[in-house]
Amino acid sequence: MALVVMKFGGSSVADAEKIRFVANKICAKKKEGNKLVVVVSAPGDTTDDLLAMAQNVSSNPPAREMDVLLSTGEMISIALLSMAVEVLGEKVISLTGAQAGIAADTNHLNAKVKKINPKKIKNLLAKNHIVIVAGFQAINANGDIATLGRGGSDLTAVALAAALKADFCEIYSDVEGIFTTDPRIVKEASKINCLSYDEMLEMACSGAQVLQSRSVEVAKKFGVIINARGTFSQDTGTIVASEEIIKKFNGGRKMEAMLISGVTFDKNQVKFTIIDLPDMPGVASKIFINLAKINVNVDMIIQSAAIDKKNDISFTVSKSDMKKTLIELDKIAAELKTVSVICDEHVAKVSIVGVGMRTNPGIAAQMFDILAKNNINIEMISTSDIKVSCIIDEVDAMKAVQVLHKGFKLSKK
Amino acid sequence: MALVVMKFGGSSVADAEKIRFVANKICAKKKEGNKLVVVVSAPGDTTDDLLAMAQNVSSNPPAREMDVLLSTGEMISIALLSMAVEVLGEKVISLTGAQAGIAADTNHLNAKVKKINPKKIKNLLAKNHIVIVAGFQAINANGDIATLGRGGSDLTAVALAAALKADFCEIYSDVEGIFTTDPRIVKEASKINCLSYDEMLEMACSGAQVLQSRSVEVAKKFGVIINARGTFSQDTGTIVASEEIIKKFNGGRKMEAMLISGVTFDKNQVKFTIIDLPDMPGVASKIFINLAKINVNVDMIIQSAAIDKKNDISFTVSKSDMKKTLIELDKIAAELKTVSVICDEHVAKVSIVGVGMRTNPGIAAQMFDILAKNNINIEMISTSDIKVSCIIDEVDAMKAVQVLHKGFKLSKK
Repeated sequence: MALVVMKFGGSSVADAEKIRFVANKICAKKKEGNKLVVVVSAPGDTTDDLLAMAQNVSSNPPAREMDVLLSTGEMISIALLSMAVEVLGEKVISLTGAQAGIAADTNHLNAKVKKINPKKIKNLLAKNHIVIVAGFQAINANGDIATLGRGGSDLTAVALAAALKADFCEIYSDVEGIFTTDPRIVKEASKINCLSYDEMLEMACSGAQVLQSRSVEVAKKFGVIINARGTFSQDTGTIVASEEIIKKFNGGRKMEAMLISGVTFDKNQVKFTIIDLPDMPGVASKIFINLAKINVNVDMIIQSAAIDKKNDISFTVSKSDMKKTLIELDKIAAELKTVSVICDEHVAKVSIVGVGMRTNPGIAAQMFDILAKNNINIEMISTSDIKVSCIIDEVDAMKAVQVLHKGFKLSKK
Repeated sequence: MALVVMKFGGSSVADAEKIRFVANKICAKKKEGNKLVVVVSAPGDTTDDLLAMAQNVSSNPPAREMDVLLSTGEMISIALLSMAVEVLGEKVISLTGAQAGIAADTNHLNAKVKKINPKKIKNLLAKNHIVIVAGFQAINANGDIATLGRGGSDLTAVALAAALKADFCEIYSDVEGIFTTDPRIVKEASKINCLSYDEMLEMACSGAQVLQSRSVEVAKKFGVIINARGTFSQDTGTIVASEEIIKKFNGGRKMEAMLISGVTFDKNQVKFTIIDLPDMPGVASKIFINLAKINVNVDMIIQSAAIDKKNDISFTVSKSDMKKTLIELDKIAAELKTVSVICDEHVAKVSIVGVGMRTNPGIAAQMFDILAKNNINIEMISTSDIKVSCIIDEVDAMKAVQVLHKGFKLSKK
């Protein structure tokens, strides 16, 4: 008998038919003898509908009230899913984030989970109930409803799995698991059976959107084994765990056999270049401290060697931060007088990820070689011990993903 | 400076435009120097939509989960209304039933308010906040969400007004107040300026649907002054209060001057007649005890004088109880053998209500006379000290209301 946390995304509970399907899936897992906690997101487009309602009454609604509004989506899901499970004859109960003992800090719309008190859930599990918990929401010290930001339901599931010491945290969505790259771009993309936390984090940060990176960080911290799988599929999905745990799974591959696990891309990038910066201490730090102050998250940075006591600095930010970055850089340019700023929206980031890189130093060179042979120019490079990312022209992005996927032999056998 | 509870029904917050209108109304009242608690129902058809969703997954959903589902409607309203008020520059905060300190018993879908802890609301009012509370919902001793049944938002408003010792409880809806009869039937129907609790209770029980009778009972118990008025109207509405308070209002009429306050009707009635009951002790009580056991609420009862040791008993129930009443009576008929049961769905109840009756004994006779002169046959009669009700043929109902309204001179001047 295992204790399993199952999480279903909004598309899995978008209508009555899907809710009944998910209820059957839950009851089948219960009948296997498992204790179950189920986390569920708001149905289908509910969250977007609620956002639109808010926009109709206020262009800048208070975050506290947005949280009250948004939390209703998941409450609708837990109630309906509980009803559908009850029809199938299992004992079941729904809990809001507050009832489930999920305490958050006092931020709104992007609160952090501070603590989970699992007492109520444990009592209900002991009485053989299936416990259905609203994802994405918590209660803060003021007794206010707080939501956990985009992908917050994944975080709820992983945090509950950690607090309950669950055997697995199954994250169900409309894709079958984590793929070597986006199957919409490379149709030979194959599902990855096992992936380490670090690989998953690099992939999540590099554009793969199946798992929210905050939830992978929490899973890594508490050793929660994640199983990402498809709601409407029989496939066993992808296991995300520590490298030690993965070695125990005989899921098809040994860690060392694969050089890289996946190819990811991210078109949500803007490249800024500041030309003719004075080459003196404090100039670069001034720029990035000022950007940090206005909450701009800078991704890659390169600085060219100084010529004539002048430097060029390039860096990338996400497209949503483009406007405020431009405003800030214009201020700095006005101060420093000599510099000019170039902004390029038409770039993309292509990355390869894999723990095999650690012991195979030639991987980055192999990547550059594949891109060069396909006439794809590299504008910026950044690396970690398990990832290499390149900024390239946006028009080359799809081609780059395809040739890298093929070059590193990631396609289905 | 007064402390006012304002309650807005679902049709008053059905869309963004109406929500903004209500927000303006609230802010205008705030600017007059009042402290405000606002209670709001679910927007427009939300509750019906949620009920339909539940029916799509379960034909008999658990009441606890229905309460989780239904409570989301009012949460949407409080969040959106708070946003709209904030836009207008007032300090405002929304509270769910639980956050507002409204504690209920452990029934679901029709819970009773047990206690209100107004501490949080009082603190917020002291800080000059407008406090917007979700109607219809409470929390029970298990920490579960409980809803208060049809019209429960009126009850929330009156109960909060009682707990906070508010000066007024204003109940806003899409009608301008309590009318002498339904203006859709008698276009000369006039708005009543003042009405005692007892009159309002008799009218609510006799078919007038502006105020829920449970909330009027609570208002009477705690002396809460209700002002029923139209959201989209400038009219001052109807004051419902004790007879002593009403005497202080110089709102147009003295209590004694009007013989009756209104004419109501109720087509939701079924008349049962049991013929040839043995005239012996215990027979009538057996029937009504058995009906009470299956939760059938019997309204009017008449028993004819015994002839040949046989009795006839007639009584009325609401149409929703017709089927189970029939099944129960068939059992009794099978036991007693000699009796037969007649069921008449085509009846209506017409009532006149007014405290003036107490000191004017001829009122009932005058009602019968008006009906007789208009060839309307009376099938059953029941009276209280401030009400006379007659069961008549359904086809005569509209005509009866019109001739009584005219005969008792209730039309607009």
